[in-house]
Amino acid sequence: MRNFEFYNPVRICFGKGEIVQLSKLVPKGANILLTYGGGSIKKNGVYDQVMAALKGFKVIEFSGIEANPHYETLMKGVALVKAHKIDFLLAVGGGSVLDGTKFIAAAALWEGSDPWEILSRRSERHVERALPIGTVLTLPATGSEMNGNSVVTRWETHEKLAFDSEHVMPKFSILDPEVVFSLPQIQVANGIVDAFIHVMEQYLTFPVNAPIQDRFAESVLKTLIEEGPKVLADRTNYDAAANFMWAATMALNGLIGVGVPQDWATHMIGHELTAFHGIDHGQTLCIVLPGIMKLKRENKTEKILQYGERVWEITEGTVDQRIDATIQKTVEFFESVGIKTKLADYGVGSEIINKVVDRFVKRGIKAIGERGDLTTENIAKILELQLK
Amino acid sequence: MRNFEFYNPVRICFGKGEIVQLSKLVPKGANILLTYGGGSIKKNGVYDQVMAALKGFKVIEFSGIEANPHYETLMKGVALVKAHKIDFLLAVGGGSVLDGTKFIAAAALWEGSDPWEILSRRSERHVERALPIGTVLTLPATGSEMNGNSVVTRWETHEKLAFDSEHVMPKFSILDPEVVFSLPQIQVANGIVDAFIHVMEQYLTFPVNAPIQDRFAESVLKTLIEEGPKVLADRTNYDAAANFMWAATMALNGLIGVGVPQDWATHMIGHELTAFHGIDHGQTLCIVLPGIMKLKRENKTEKILQYGERVWEITEGTVDQRIDATIQKTVEFFESVGIKTKLADYGVGSEIINKVVDRFVKRGIKAIGERGDLTTENIAKILELQLK
Repeated sequence: MRNFEFYNPVRICFGKGEIVQLSKLVPKGANILLTYGGGSIKKNGVYDQVMAALKGFKVIEFSGIEANPHYETLMKGVALVKAHKIDFLLAVGGGSVLDGTKFIAAAALWEGSDPWEILSRRSERHVERALPIGTVLTLPATGSEMNGNSVVTRWETHEKLAFDSEHVMPKFSILDPEVVFSLPQIQVANGIVDAFIHVMEQYLTFPVNAPIQDRFAESVLKTLIEEGPKVLADRTNYDAAANFMWAATMALNGLIGVGVPQDWATHMIGHELTAFHGIDHGQTLCIVLPGIMKLKRENKTEKILQYGERVWEITEGTVDQRIDATIQKTVEFFESVGIKTKLADYGVGSEIINKVVDRFVKRGIKAIGERGDLTTENIAKILELQLK
Repeated sequence: MRNFEFYNPVRICFGKGEIVQLSKLVPKGANILLTYGGGSIKKNGVYDQVMAALKGFKVIEFSGIEANPHYETLMKGVALVKAHKIDFLLAVGGGSVLDGTKFIAAAALWEGSDPWEILSRRSERHVERALPIGTVLTLPATGSEMNGNSVVTRWETHEKLAFDSEHVMPKFSILDPEVVFSLPQIQVANGIVDAFIHVMEQYLTFPVNAPIQDRFAESVLKTLIEEGPKVLADRTNYDAAANFMWAATMALNGLIGVGVPQDWATHMIGHELTAFHGIDHGQTLCIVLPGIMKLKRENKTEKILQYGERVWEITEGTVDQRIDATIQKTVEFFESVGIKTKLADYGVGSEIINKVVDRFVKRGIKAIGERGDLTTENIAKILELQLK
């Protein structure tokens, strides 16, 4: 195991009916900016529950945060914060609303010339301050409710970039599994595969003798495989919704990734597919990961075999046969929840390859992945493998 | 899964050489009370590392915190805090030093007439304030480094009582697995079984459809079973020490116990064996747990079968045979690491039974356990089963 630091002070309030806790969790006398998306919270009753719990607080609303939240939209939120002397942000939504709100919280106190630097110059300039955030999660998927990560898209340049900071970790997150009951099928499916691949990014690398981390990762994967289809089959199955929701949170709250190598190439490549073609985040991951598993099988042999054996019970055959069977099982799982895994399924052809490669070249990124050896040539090859 | 709240803001710095981080972790200008035990930290080099990292800080030392820390001793620490205007406590030691320091931190700011109320009246009067604490862990076992729990013994009355509060959770804990290298065999063995039984208290109850929590618990158990003997066989095996240390922390940082029923009868009965006879905490647990598994097998049938199958691969035979085999495997594991499981092994006879039962009767406790049906008659029976 490698040395590590772990710090996660997010207070989780989990279970049905927990939204009422808001009245105690939000600091007394706070000027709240309530952030949300396209208004689904007004249809599923969450908005009403939130407003009832916030009775007596001063609340300014900022709606319209879109999927893959746009920098351009979020800067309007920053202006509202300043105009209304907001001192607490309450994000009610899925990963996009939460990520966008984290950006607003950091940008409102940013001392540089342009808050875009938070994303474009993240390696040089760290976020050192942010307004406090609380969240009510309405879509299990990204894990944003229990981490300091945020991904923001600049629409005018089709750039999708990430930052992370302890300072944007929510003070609290309310996770009521009943929000799952009204989710459309595609959002549940995207959430299942998003959480699944968050685990894979931290697990499917090379072994460093970290059995707790490995087993926790496998625990989350097995739970998603078992519970995900139950949620898809019956949206009112509370236990399945709860287990799916908790699995998605555990997939990216930092715990399974401590002291082990991490990959994240699937996300880096996937982000470009969203930036260029607007393909859902979860879908992009299901396109890219199988390609990486195929191309980087030598890099990942031991962990693919362990994953195949412990998660899919694949123990027969040569090493290559077991790897093939494990990739096959993974692809079948994605397809079984309704997520296609080839670029052609989304109407995207080979023209995407050079566009994505150019992006990495222009940013000066020569190689990615857990060993830093997944080159831009590899990226081209991975996308080629996943064309159709 | 049941509703739950989870909050654990302890910053973990894990790995070899991490003690140097102290200089950054302790607040600038702090007046530190450095608390430790019998002086083993002066032999294994930890004291020197700590003092080197604290160069420039004002440090008052308070040594001599004993195993099962005594209220009488700790109140001397409280007096030092007040005399020297201490504003930060740094505990360097195992669970006893950490627990004792938590008590000092709470007692120093206690507003009631007598700090003993923190323990004796915990159900009525909660700890609302405490001095900030940091820790350098020297013995993996209790999990105290990443929770708000503390157990204190009043020597004059032979009472061992617990309290817990968010306010005594350490601000940070440094976990350097190299501290394990110099531990005596019995302390490692006690640590392994202590962590193991912390898991069992949160796991071996009844199912509530919480697969993440179950699998995380089994992950910790399997890791202790695999890595514990490696540590006992070769104290300089860094990876084994690291995995043992992280397993012990994960066993009692709250995570595996969220949303599930918990038992803690083993601890409640075990504490009395320590209070009356000074038997090591870990040893008392290994005496009591098999008795509870035997007597309460009907209560725990499903989870004992699941534990037997997933942890010990016991799948053959009738339900009763599988339960017997699972209890047998558990006892063999305790004995294999060198911890005896019968009262006679510690020179204690049947006279203990009434003494322990009387304690529960006097406190007005009629029944304990995850179903609240483990009566004082059951306690007598459990101890009788474990006599020899």
